[in-house]
Order: sequence, then structure tokens, then C-alpha cells
Amino acid sequence: MPRYVYDFIEGDRSRADLLGGKGANLAEMTRLGLPVPPGFTISTDACRAHLATGSPPAGLFDEVNTHLREIEARLDRRLGDPHDPLLLAVRSGGRYSMPGMMETILDIGLNDATVTGLAARSGDERFAWDSYRRLIQMFGRTVYGAPAEEFEQELAAVRATAGAAGPTAEQLHDLVETYKKIFARRVGHDFPQAPHEQLFLAIRAVFASWHSERARIYRRQERIPDDLGTAVNVMAMVFGNLGPDSGTGVAFTRDPATGAPGVYGDYLPDAQGEDVVAGVRNTIGLPELERIDPVSFRRLLEIMATLERHYRDLCDIEFTIERGRLWMLQTRVGKRTPAAAFVIAAQLVDEGMITPAEALTRVTGAQLAQLMFPAFDLTAAPEPLAVGVGASPGAAVGRVVFDSAAAAAATEPVILVRRETNPDDLPGMIAAAGVLTSRGGKTSHAAVVARGMGRTCVCGAEALDIDARRDECTVGDRVVRAGEVISIDGTTGRIYLGEVPVQPSPVARYLAGELNPEADPLVAAVHRLLGHADAVRRLGVRANADTPADARRARRLGAAGIGLCRTEHMFLGDRRELVERLILAEGPAERDAALAALLPPQRADFVGILAAMDGLPVTIRLLDPPLHEFLPALPELTARVARAEALGTDPGRDATLLGAVRRMHEANPMLGLRGVRLGLVVPGLFAMQVRAVAEAAAQRRRAGGDPRPEIMVPLVGDVRELAAVRDEAERVLAEVDDAPEIPIGTMIEVPRAALTAGEIATEATFFSFGTNDLTQTTWACSRDDAEGSFFGAYLERGIFPVSPFERIDARGVGRLIRLAVAEGRAARPELTVGVCGEHGGDPDSVAFFAEAGLDYVSCSPYRVPIARLAAGRAAVDATTGTSDSR
Amino acid sequence: MPRYVYDFIEGDRSRADLLGGKGANLAEMTRLGLPVPPGFTISTDACRAHLATGSPPAGLFDEVNTHLREIEARLDRRLGDPHDPLLLAVRSGGRYSMPGMMETILDIGLNDATVTGLAARSGDERFAWDSYRRLIQMFGRTVYGAPAEEFEQELAAVRATAGAAGPTAEQLHDLVETYKKIFARRVGHDFPQAPHEQLFLAIRAVFASWHSERARIYRRQERIPDDLGTAVNVMAMVFGNLGPDSGTGVAFTRDPATGAPGVYGDYLPDAQGEDVVAGVRNTIGLPELERIDPVSFRRLLEIMATLERHYRDLCDIEFTIERGRLWMLQTRVGKRTPAAAFVIAAQLVDEGMITPAEALTRVTGAQLAQLMFPAFDLTAAPEPLAVGVGASPGAAVGRVVFDSAAAAAATEPVILVRRETNPDDLPGMIAAAGVLTSRGGKTSHAAVVARGMGRTCVCGAEALDIDARRDECTVGDRVVRAGEVISIDGTTGRIYLGEVPVQPSPVARYLAGELNPEADPLVAAVHRLLGHADAVRRLGVRANADTPADARRARRLGAAGIGLCRTEHMFLGDRRELVERLILAEGPAERDAALAALLPPQRADFVGILAAMDGLPVTIRLLDPPLHEFLPALPELTARVARAEALGTDPGRDATLLGAVRRMHEANPMLGLRGVRLGLVVPGLFAMQVRAVAEAAAQRRRAGGDPRPEIMVPLVGDVRELAAVRDEAERVLAEVDDAPEIPIGTMIEVPRAALTAGEIATEATFFSFGTNDLTQTTWACSRDDAEGSFFGAYLERGIFPVSPFERIDARGVGRLIRLAVAEGRAARPELTVGVCGEHGGDPDSVAFFAEAGLDYVSCSPYRVPIARLAAGRAAVDATTGTSDSR
Repeated sequence: MPRYVYDFIEGDRSRADLLGGKGANLAEMTRLGLPVPPGFTISTDACRAHLATGSPPAGLFDEVNTHLREIEARLDRRLGDPHDPLLLAVRSGGRYSMPGMMETILDIGLNDATVTGLAARSGDERFAWDSYRRLIQMFGRTVYGAPAEEFEQELAAVRATAGAAGPTAEQLHDLVETYKKIFARRVGHDFPQAPHEQLFLAIRAVFASWHSERARIYRRQERIPDDLGTAVNVMAMVFGNLGPDSGTGVAFTRDPATGAPGVYGDYLPDAQGEDVVAGVRNTIGLPELERIDPVSFRRLLEIMATLERHYRDLCDIEFTIERGRLWMLQTRVGKRTPAAAFVIAAQLVDEGMITPAEALTRVTGAQLAQLMFPAFDLTAAPEPLAVGVGASPGAAVGRVVFDSAAAAAATEPVILVRRETNPDDLPGMIAAAGVLTSRGGKTSHAAVVARGMGRTCVCGAEALDIDARRDECTVGDRVVRAGEVISIDGTTGRIYLGEVPVQPSPVARYLAGELNPEADPLVAAVHRLLGHADAVRRLGVRANADTPADARRARRLGAAGIGLCRTEHMFLGDRRELVERLILAEGPAERDAALAALLPPQRADFVGILAAMDGLPVTIRLLDPPLHEFLPALPELTARVARAEALGTDPGRDATLLGAVRRMHEANPMLGLRGVRLGLVVPGLFAMQVRAVAEAAAQRRRAGGDPRPEIMVPLVGDVRELAAVRDEAERVLAEVDDAPEIPIGTMIEVPRAALTAGEIATEATFFSFGTNDLTQTTWACSRDDAEGSFFGAYLERGIFPVSPFERIDARGVGRLIRLAVAEGRAARPELTVGVCGEHGGDPDSVAFFAEAGLDYVSCSPYRVPIARLAAGRAAVDATTGTSDSR
Repeated sequence: MPRYVYDFIEGDRSRADLLGGKGANLAEMTRLGLPVPPGFTISTDACRAHLATGSPPAGLFDEVNTHLREIEARLDRRLGDPHDPLLLAVRSGGRYSMPGMMETILDIGLNDATVTGLAARSGDERFAWDSYRRLIQMFGRTVYGAPAEEFEQELAAVRATAGAAGPTAEQLHDLVETYKKIFARRVGHDFPQAPHEQLFLAIRAVFASWHSERARIYRRQERIPDDLGTAVNVMAMVFGNLGPDSGTGVAFTRDPATGAPGVYGDYLPDAQGEDVVAGVRNTIGLPELERIDPVSFRRLLEIMATLERHYRDLCDIEFTIERGRLWMLQTRVGKRTPAAAFVIAAQLVDEGMITPAEALTRVTGAQLAQLMFPAFDLTAAPEPLAVGVGASPGAAVGRVVFDSAAAAAATEPVILVRRETNPDDLPGMIAAAGVLTSRGGKTSHAAVVARGMGRTCVCGAEALDIDARRDECTVGDRVVRAGEVISIDGTTGRIYLGEVPVQPSPVARYLAGELNPEADPLVAAVHRLLGHADAVRRLGVRANADTPADARRARRLGAAGIGLCRTEHMFLGDRRELVERLILAEGPAERDAALAALLPPQRADFVGILAAMDGLPVTIRLLDPPLHEFLPALPELTARVARAEALGTDPGRDATLLGAVRRMHEANPMLGLRGVRLGLVVPGLFAMQVRAVAEAAAQRRRAGGDPRPEIMVPLVGDVRELAAVRDEAERVLAEVDDAPEIPIGTMIEVPRAALTAGEIATEATFFSFGTNDLTQTTWACSRDDAEGSFFGAYLERGIFPVSPFERIDARGVGRLIRLAVAEGRAARPELTVGVCGEHGGDPDSVAFFAEAGLDYVSCSPYRVPIARLAAGRAAVDATTGTSDSR
């Protein structure tokens, strides 16, 4: 016979899977001897059994009755006793907190008879009738879905009649009668008078609430599995609404906003918890409580200290004082802001409560990323004009434009404001400082695309009524016209009129070397945890950088080299004309001349980058994109030539270019003539690049530097491609005097490279996973095309829990990575293996790469600290076996 | 101490790896007691050792001497004996035949002293001096690279002086002196007189010839591994040039062109083998030999019968008659035409020499494919105008056009003639009946693209001088102008002026049901072997067919169902406008109306196809291509609108369309919004298709049919995509009365589907590998873009041995297939697994699929017989363990 019910004295916090978070923590407090009202927890097993069959498992209510009798014995009070009734609270509580999503029913046990007993025992008739009307209302709504508004209207009417002193007992008694009528009308039968029936119905309602639509939506958003089920906590009622010596409150052991030491909380005298939540009356601070009830206050401080020592972390609690007696109703490790997470973790180390390694597990790379964004100076901010969904973090200020073409053409910062966006808006989104829409959520086109490009975005600000044709939008009475300045906060979703001053992030300033680590507690905490991450991590962190300036920035941010230096960026700007000459070259002589002209500027670029990264590896990728990317686009040229022809003018050079572009046009350029294929088809191209690298390194050496270039071949799918490039490269390298030894390796960015990694490793000194392209080809999904077209729908339907371009897809792409690492190292044990796709800067992905045994990740410079932290955390998790993949 | 030398009596034909093909067969004949001159073989091990170190392995020449002494003893004649010298032939012979690529040196052992002994013993002074001059010439060229022309010029001069009777002994003696001078001048030292030195130098020269450039190129073309090395055969010389009772010949045991029974060969009296090769004199037929030397002729017939019985196959032989005595110099299983291969295999079964299973291993799917092409009636063909490289088989007749635009616009069949082609020529190539170029080989753009689209193509016809500007080309004196009719043979490379009548292939006619199997011996043989293939194969063969006509054709050709019915073809033609309505629909009502209009015509298509395939499975793929493929192309629309704007006219509907096309434009449509993604994003699209299938099946059932549709979801990468479509499909299916059970499965065509096949199988009743897309994504290589841009270079450089779109890439794509089959079946043991990419019709790939354990392949209808044969062969190979993957 399985067991489903556990008294609080039987459990502990390690059993949250079975007892839910709330139940486990109640048990833990009971075990610590803290004043918790007697009660028991019905396990998640029972809920799962109920959800599977639609009815409670056999024997459950017998077990409940057994435990109930124990409580009755302990309190010497019985459920349904008309003279001195035991009242019960029934609360849900799953493994993971789902605030406000699940159900609670208080005052179980009241009926027409026991209400008078309660009145007698409490000496407060008003209180008794008020409790009864609360029960009828909560029970009706929770168990039978009766609408709350009807009850609320009646209550409001009574309150209005009663005036400042509040309703009399008589009035409340009448209200109960009215409530019972509403209940009967809405539910179809009378309010159940039998206290045990009330209890069992309440338990079933909590079970059923697991599958309510809002709970389901919440779980999908928070990625909580759907099959966990909830536990149900049944506890003797204590009352904070028995007069001025009663009350209820919430408290934190430290400030959850800043992490500052010292307790922090709110207290509401003469009230129940639901009154705090409803925000009907104003709370007072804890110091006030000290004045009202110093004994309870001191006891509360003692308990909070005990809990913090015990949990070794910030705790939040709910408590009630019933006629001067303190009761603990809940505790848990408290939520906190990113800043508080860092500050508290560092403090706990200082206080000797946790080790530096544990401190690393208390913060995440995602939190550090948030701390690096500039933020609005909220002391200078007006009331928000409206609030939408914070869809892509950051603080953006600019002039309103309602048209993407106008945004693309703007010369000063603009905020692109659209009802919703579509692919036509892309140029405008790229040009804008921020994007604001009135429709759609975190998975809308605007949100997905903006996050993809790191652009600040607020979505679904439904208060905005946008009339793009008239170039204006209205919010209530206020009309906002094109050209007006607004400020949008992509983290909070707030929209402000005018320019709100933006504060650079102190963490970012510290990381850039502009602030001293002692500057403030947050910076000091970040400094300390990053230092510890660096000390423990096994994963190296390099940066993706294509210019000396980026390289210097990356080095300041802690990069141990460059993992990806893209050479195509060196073919843009003034040099585009040289590339055009190369493409249009007729015959080897013209082609060689064009290549020769490209060599000196590239060499100069490499000299600068190698100088910035002196003594550290610099992985230089040979040219990757298709050459036609350096020519004007086909539709544009076609239109130009068509226009000239229609007008009878000479299209001139455009006609030549159009010929070349047509000849080189590719239906799917991502899968076309690029990367190593270019190198094998355009004679001399890769040789020129290799020579530029070798000559730059030689020049640096002669100048006394320690250049460490590495040459990386892109898009290899077969070992013979790499062997051919390697042969040619080694011939060139042998010709350059003073060049250092230059390792030659390859990107692993097409599935076939991963599948044949054992062969490829025979020709490669290193592998670098290009996870962007590897994701695109493994999923057969072009990021550019997909983010705007179907990713939104996929995220919404839960087909992706998160975009595979944000977090590495461990089951698909990750399987290829593991396979390639294993087979590559089997073939060449000294093989160095890194990753240089954007996933290299995503904390969850970094954890995956650490676990997969990579040597380093490489990411954009500003993500280097995030990767360092994530790598440190991953090292700690690996030793302790922690791995909460949610 | 390794052993390197084997006497002919020690070896046998099973040791071809060690002894080379020629050596193994000489040993086999020796073992059979046939008259083979005594000799021995130096193994390929020795060659590999020589190639690795640059010098012969230690002890090799001692071993050679030991074996040489045995021959001397057996013949009672010694190398270098001035009175009766033993002369030796040294011939190369690797594992695989490389005709004309490797070296041979005859008459080793002749010098200034032994030449008189040979003269005395043969009684023929002219013969002796002629042999000596042959040795000096061959030795000079082969061992030292001395130019053959100088020797040939001197020989020609002497022959001219001598007249009809030929040079005298005196003249030949003087010629030898001249040759020795040429040798000394070209080589730098005198011709080596020591016979053993001659022998050792000749052996080393044969070793070295393995790495000659032409041998290397040949091996690359024929895909013979570079590291096999060659064996060297050393054999006592016998002479066919000792007068009218001597001679030399080649013979086949059956006609290698038609397979007709009866020996077949050529004989040249008073000649050595090299004279036959040089074609200096005309050979006579074997019946002639019967007249000249009936004894040797009868002996030859006996030997050939013995060999055929022994080898159980067509053999070809080389023989020499020395003064009435017959010697066998070589035999091997003979090459034959595809027609002969079938006819001979069937005959051998009839004659009881081989089993039907063995017969299957004697023919290939590629041979059957060749037999299905129509061919020119060569009896009616003129002399070819020129000969190029047969690059894509078939016989094409049409008017010459020199311009791709003209080809694309032509209304009657044309042959596109270009110096070479590039992507601009694509529309012309698609429209033309055949393609002819004057430059480039089998890996040129024209060749690769034409093969890809199954278009007849002749490349590199260098005799053509093309002047496209003047719309003409010249071949010698003949000018061919645009509009003239020519005929090109893509198999032989021949180009004819005028229309050569094309004969439909009798095999194709038989397969189409137009010829009776007894019609001719070839058809009878094909009928018989296909029947046996069907009896033994475990792999099913279905067809890819989208119309009732295709379905009927496929069924006639032996397809056991349709493995891929593409529904996008049902959206073309008249129905394109309906698709436009769907795309441009504003709001759900318009969209639903457009979908509703598309349903009836699709249902009608399905009814027709299900009727044609009544009782057999029909796998219907839901819509796959991106919707914008149904709209005009972006550059075309852009130009139209630009032109209208330039002229100030109204672009009208074009402007609306341009907006839609721009909005839907994708940088890489292959990786964009298509397949299952469309189904999940366009509400109702897949539901409409599923309903059309179900209603069609219900209609067929009510009409008494046995419809067996299956629904296939394209481009699935994650099980959740499939689950979502399946849910929707099952809802729709449940609504249609009389519909049969309709299995739902998925394409496995993106790497992630293969990598997560175990998960996907939980929602799929069947898998069908879409190897076209799977190859494209696994290699990150778009076939359309790559075949014209870099495949040529890749094939030429040996990076691909063959295009991965022609033959399945077993190491990369194949690995994904094996993995998906294993994990899919582990998750769902009853899973049906097939393939519907074009590889399903490639014989080598079919063998792979059989071995990988697939249930069926599906290919274009005309490839069905080829797949049936290949599947039969694969079944036989699997039982016998045969697998010559080359």
C-alpha cells in the first residue's frame, strides 16, 4: 500500500520532489523546532495518481483522517466541533514555485454551527463571520469556479454602507447569507456544511488546479515539466486578524533588491496573508513591528538568523502573529535581483557560511549579462507612458519613427515603433536603437529578431494605438508624433516620454578597466566571483575579434586569445573595389594582380591584431563568405539596369556587374561556393591570405613580439579538402623567413565534418566548432530566414523550448559535437578543441561545452566575462555533480 | 625474412592481391597444365617496399637469381650464354588491369655476344638482330626515358631503304650500332651488356612506372587505390616472329560485343605481341588460323574451352605460336559490353556453368541503365564529324544553337553548342535535347550539370572551333551553322552531321511491355536475370510518381507502390492562381476559402493515383517547397516594377506581388519556411491536404478499390513537429467516413532527424530517407549551386571520387542513415524504413541501402528495373560475402 501523507515532523527539505517546496520547507522548520502550526503534506505522488485516473488514489482520505486526528489530539480541538472548532488551511505547493498560479483555501471547517463556536472562542463575532464569508467565497471560486466579482460586489456594497468602522457582525452575518445564495445559484447546490467534505473537496481542487490553463502556460514559460504534479499542505489555521496584537507579514533575511545586509520586510497588523497579497491596506516596515511587539520582533530576528545559518542563503518567510504569538507559515530560499545575487554570494563567503566554489553556484552568466547592460537612471525617470513586454534587454533612447525605411535612413538614434514587424522591417530594425511594438509577446517576430541581433526591444505594449499612416500613436489621451523622443527599457518593458538619462553599468565599467574593484559592493562581488571562476575553470575563454581595437577590448575583458578572427571584414570598405577586381579578373594575370593588391592591407591588419594579442593565440579564419557578397545585390542591379533600359540610357558598369552577379548567383548561398570551396576553386586566394598571416607574424617577430597566429580553414566537410589546403599553406609558409610555426586547423561546422572527425583530425592541429553554421545545417534552418518566419510559432508551441541559436541544442547539434570530440581526439590525442559560434557566450551552452570536454570557448568580447563565470560555475557543478538543467 | 618471388607453379588466381592479375592467372594456367613459358612473379609487396624506400627490398635480387636458376635448369638454357641464351620478358601486372599504362620489356638477355648465339640457335640472323634492336629501344625508353621517336626515325629510314622484302641482317646489325649510339647519347652511358644487370634494371623500371603521371591519372579516373603497387612477371621469351609457322594472337571465348557463342579473335602470323598492339599490319581472323595451322588451332580451342569451364566466364587470352608450338601468354576474365554481360550470364546458366545467383553478380544496374537508353542506328550513321568525351549518355538529335537564350526559346529540339557552359547557360541546357562543348572533360560544368539533369552531353570535342558571335563553328573545312541538324551520342562521344535515326532500346521496350521476352536473346537475358533478382531480393522497390500516368508506368516497370508522391506538383499550372490567393489572403476567411478551393482538384489527383496503384502503398508527401516558389521571381518582378516606374506607368498587380515576394523572400530558401514548418505556420494547409487524401481513399473504397495511402511529413527535425502534425492529421482523419487506416510517417532528410531518430520513431509509423536533402544538409552543399560551381574541380582533384548526389556518401550521410535505422527500430521495432531520394535508383547506393537494412527504395519509374536488379545483386552479394566496392 503506497503512502501519500506525511506529517510535518516526518519530512525535510531534501524531499521537495515528494512534498513540494513549501511542504519540505515547513517540515524543515518543524524539524528545527521553529513555531510552525501542526499539519501534514499530501505528496505529489497522490496528485500524479489523481491526475492519471481523475480520482484520488484509494486510501488517501483514510490516511488524511488518521493524520488529521493526530493534529486534533495535539491541539485538543476537533474539526467540526461546534464549540471550539479546528480550522484548516489547504495550500498547494509543487517542486518549483509557481507564484499565484495554484490554489489556496483557508478557514476550512467553518459552517453554520462552528462559526458560533469560533465567535465564542475568539471573543470576536465580527472576525468569525468575516472568516466564514471568506471561506464561502474562496471555496466557491476554487472548487467550483464561481465568479469572484459577484462576491466582491456584495462585499463592497456592505463596506460602503458600514463606513470607516467597518461592517458590524450583523452585517457580516447577512453577507454570509447573501454569499450562500450566490454560491447555490452559481454552483447548483448549497454550500457544503460538512467540514470533512469541505476538506476533501479542497484537496481535490488543489490537485485539479495543476492542469488549469494559466498554470500550464506558466509552466511552459518557465520550462517546468508538466508531469510533476503538486503537493497539498494541510495546516491548522492561525489568525493574524484577531485584533491589534495580531498581524501577518513577509520578510527577507537580506535586501533582495541590492543584497544589503539586514532584515527587510512588510507587516500588516490585524490582517490575514491574503490581505497583504490583495494590497488593500498599506503595510508597515519591520522597524514598526519592533515598536508594536518587541518580543515577537526579536523572536522573528532569531528565527531568521537560524534559517539563514541553516539554509546558508537568503531566505524569505511568511509569518503570522496571533494575539502576540509568532507562527511561521512558510520559508524558502528567496528570489533576488542579479545584483543581490552577486553581493549576497560574496557576503556569505565573507561570513564563512559558504565556500567560494559554492558562491559560484549562486550566480549565473545570465545574471552577469544583465548587470552589464546600461540602465535608465530611475531617479530621473518620469512615470512610464506605458508598459509592454521586455523582450530584448537594454535601455534605448531615440526619436520615434513609424516606418522602417525612415528608420534605415535616419542619421540620429531612432526607436522604430510598429504594430508588429515583418521581414520588410529588417533594415529599419538594424538601423534603430530600439524596437517597440504594440502587439505580440516574447516570441513575436520583433522579439525574436531583436534578441537575435542584440537590439533593445519592448513588445506588446497594448496601450499604444499606432496609426502609421498618420505618423502618430496615441496612449490614452496623449498623442506621440514621429520625431518625438522616447526611452524604452527592454528589461522591464517600460516606455517613457522624453530622454531618460542612461547610466552606464558599473559592472561594465569595471570590466572595461574604468572602475576599481573596490568602487562599490556589487563590483567587488563580481570581481571576487570572476576571480574565483578563473581559478577553478578548466575551459579557456577566447574572443571573436576582427580588428586590433576589438582584440584590445577582448584582452581587457579577460580573453586568453582570439578564437575567431574573420578575414572577410578586411575585404570591405575601400578594399571592396579590389575584391571586385578579383571577381571580374579575366585570366590569371589580372587575378594575380588583384590578389597581390589585397595582400599588403591584410598583412597590416594582422600585424595590428597580433600586436594586440602578443603572446596569445590568434585563430585566423581564411575567407568564408561567397564572393558575390562583395558585389551589389541582384534585385538592386536588375532594377538599375531595367530602369536604364526603359529610359534608353546606358547602364554602363552596371551591365558588367549584373552579368557577373547573375553568373555567380546562388539559390542558397549558405550552401554554395564559400569557405574551403572558394580556396580550392579560386587559385591563389588562400595562398595570399596565408602569406599575409606569415609575413605579419615574421614582421612582429623581427620587432621583438611573440606572435601566435593559427590558420583555420572554414566549411571543411571532407579530410581531402583540408589536406589540399594544408599542402598549399605549408608550401607558402616554408617560403616566408622568420615566420613562427603556424598550426593549421579547421572549423567543424557542417555535419559531415563532425561525422568524419576522426579522418579530419589526421590533417588538423585543432578543431573549432562553428556552432552557428552547424546548427543551421543540422536543423536545415537558416537563422536569417527562420527567426522572422517560424521561430515565433515554434517557441509559442513549445517545439523549441528556446531557440537553438541561443542555446546549444544538446540532443542534436550537441551529439555531433560529442562525437567529433571523441573521434577527433582518438585520432589525434593532442588535438585542441574549441568553439567559436555565438553559443560560446551563452552560459547554458558554456556549461555544455565544459561537460563535453572542450578546451576553450570563443565569443564576442563583451561576453568574455560571462563565459568566464559560466565556465567557473560549470567546473564547480562538475565536481559537486550539481546540474539543474532547468 | 619476407618472401617476394613466386614461381608460376606456386601461385593461383586467388592471390591476385599479391601476384597481380596477370601473375595470378599465369600461375592458374600453369597449375592447369596449360603451355605457359616458365617464369616467376615478383610480388606487389616488393613493389610497395620499393616505392616506400626508393630501392628494392633486401634480398630481392638473390631471390630472383634463385628462381632464375630454376628456369635455366628446366629449360637447360642460361641467361647470357653466348651459344644458346635464355631470353626473358619482364611485364608489369597489378591487382587491377591498367591497359597500356605500365611497362613491358622483352628480349632481356641479348647483348653483343648472345645475339650471335640467338642467330645461330634460331637459324635466323635477321630475327636475332631485330630482337636486339627492339631490346635497346624498349630498354632505353622504359628504363631511362630515352625518346622513342629517334629510334623510330632510324628504323623508318632503314625500312625505306630496304623496300618490300624488309631490312637485311646486315642492315639490322648496322641499325643496332646506330641504336647503341643514340642510347649512349641520350642516357649518358653505354647500353648495359650484362644480362643480369638488364634484368634488375628492368624490374626496377617496372616498379617505378607505378608512379608515372599517366598511371596516376588513370588510377584516379578508375578509382584504383594509389598504394597497391604492381607485381612484375619474369618469363622465358617465346617468339611469334620466327617465320610463317609462328605468330601471335588474342582471342575471346565468346563475342565480347554481343555475347554470341563461339570463339572470336585476331591472329598475326610472323609477329610479336607488340606488333599487334602497334597495328602496323592487318590481323587475320581465327578461321584463317585454322587453315594455316589446324593443329595449333584445335589445341587453342581446347584450351579456351578448358579456361571457360575453369573460370566459368568469358575469358580473353593472348597466345604465341613459335614454330608450330602454342604458348599461352596471358588470360583473364574478359571485358564485355553491357549487352554481352547479360547474354553471357544467361547462357552460362543455361549451360549449367553458373547458378542464377552467380549470374546476378555478373551484371550491374549501371549496365542495365545503359541498355535502356535509345541508341543511334549505327548502320544508318555517317562517319562522325568529330568525337568528344561521352559525358552524359543518350542519343540526341536537334538543330544547332550557339546561344542559351535561343535554346531556351526554341520550339523544336535543339542541341546547345558552347565552348564551355556556366550557370547562365542553365535555362538553355534545360530546354535543349543535348549539350555539346568543345572544352572540358567529364568533370566540366556542362558534364556535371547535364548528368545531374539526365541530359545527353558530349564534352571537349576539341576539333570544333566555335564562333558563337558568328553563329557557326568549323570542324576542319566544314562550317556548321546555327539551325543545321546534328546528332550527338552521349555514350560514345560521337558527333554526326544530320539526323541519325534513333532506335528505341529493345530492353526499354520490353520493360514497358511493348516487347515480348522471347523477342531477342538480350531481352530474354534481361527478363531472366530481373526475374531472378525479384526472387532473391529482400529490398522492396517503389517509385517516385506524382501523376496517375507516372504511377501506371511505374507499376508496369515493377514498382511495388509509390514511395514518394510530391503534392507540390499539384499546385502548378491552372492551380497556381489558387496558391496565389492563399498567399495573398488577408485574414482567416480568405485563407480558408483559398484552401477550400484547392481541396477538390487535389482529391481528384489522389483518386487517380490511388486507382493506378490499387492494392499497393502510396506514400503522399505533404507540401514541401516554400510558398514563394509559386510566385514570380524577385529580380524579375523588381525589374518589371522599376521599368514601370521609370516610364511613369502603373505597375498594377506587379506592385502587390512584389510586396508579397519581398516579404517572403528568403536568403536560403532551402533552409527556410518549408515542409513541416509551413504546415505548422499556415493554419489549415496540411489539414486540407490530409482531408483530400482521406476523402480520395474513401471514394476509392466506396468504388470497390483497395486504396493504401500513407501520409509523409517532410523536413521534420524534432519529434514535436511531427507530433503536432500527427495530432492535427488524426483529428481530420477521424472526421472522414469510409477512409481506411492511414499510416503517418516522416521524411528523414535533415541531420537532426537522423540524430534524434529514436525520439522521432515514437511518433512515426515509417521513415523515408530523403537523401537529396540529407546530402545537401550533411555536406552543407546545395546541389543546384554546387554542380555548376565547384563540383568539377572537386571531382578533378579527387576530393569526391564521385558526386555524393549520384552515389550515397557512405561515410558521412550513410553513417546518419545507419544510426537512424538502428535507433528508429530500437524505439519502434515494426518501423518501416525506405529511401526516396534519387540515390534510390543508383545501383551502388541500392547495395548500400540493402546492406543498411532498409525495407525499400523508391526511385523514378524508369530506374525501377535498375533498382530491382541492384537489389537482387545485393542480396546475392550479402549471402556470398562478395563486395567489390570499387
